[in-house]
Amino acid sequence: MSDFAPDPFNPACPSRRLLDRIGDRWTVLIVVALDPGPQRFGALASRVGGISQKMLTQTLRSLERDGFVTRTAYPEIPPRVEYALTPLGRSLLGPLRALEEWAVTNLPAVASHQQGYAAAAAD
Amino acid sequence: MSDFAPDPFNPACPSRRLLDRIGDRWTVLIVVALDPGPQRFGALASRVGGISQKMLTQTLRSLERDGFVTRTAYPEIPPRVEYALTPLGRSLLGPLRALEEWAVTNLPAVASHQQGYAAAAAD
Repeated sequence: MSDFAPDPFNPACPSRRLLDRIGDRWTVLIVVALDPGPQRFGALASRVGGISQKMLTQTLRSLERDGFVTRTAYPEIPPRVEYALTPLGRSLLGPLRALEEWAVTNLPAVASHQQGYAAAAAD
Repeated sequence: MSDFAPDPFNPACPSRRLLDRIGDRWTVLIVVALDPGPQRFGALASRVGGISQKMLTQTLRSLERDGFVTRTAYPEIPPRVEYALTPLGRSLLGPLRALEEWAVTNLPAVASHQQGYAAAAAD
């Protein structure tokens, strides 16, 4: 492997921090929530249950900085601000949906394994 | 959607915590590191740069509890302990590799966007 190829196994490589950001639960849920189209802050806050306003603001800013999301303010009264996926953000949808769908599909298998693990530990 | 379908958008659904665990950077790197075959603790510790012994122990235990990894102790002197992916853990390889590969492939695009963002903010 070239010295210049990103390698998340190397703690000094910025790809590791990028991996942290894209694997983050809020990134997954917000990017998937933006799939149908642009959304206002309030709509995102309702869709992503349990997220605080502060965490939603921070995560949207991080997604904007990474180039995954645009923030568009419309000069209306009252002001309207919409968030939308960029093409780069849209390219994340495949991996993030796969992660989300894996969790949904395999939750029963994981839960039943955890019960067996707890029972074995109690023996 | 049925009341019983897992939904990570619902903060009370256990699929959200599962999503946290599988999206975690250490889970991604350890599961990908186990792809070639069973590994000893020390080999994993070297492969996953920068992980502490404590974090590796904790993450392996969590992966074991979720049914993704087995821990096998061989009755040898000195004792040998190996970690290996289960079929359930192996089914995670696809989504986790996709996430890792997305980060490696798109790091340059993200880095160049961040520079543009910082420059725009400084204007």
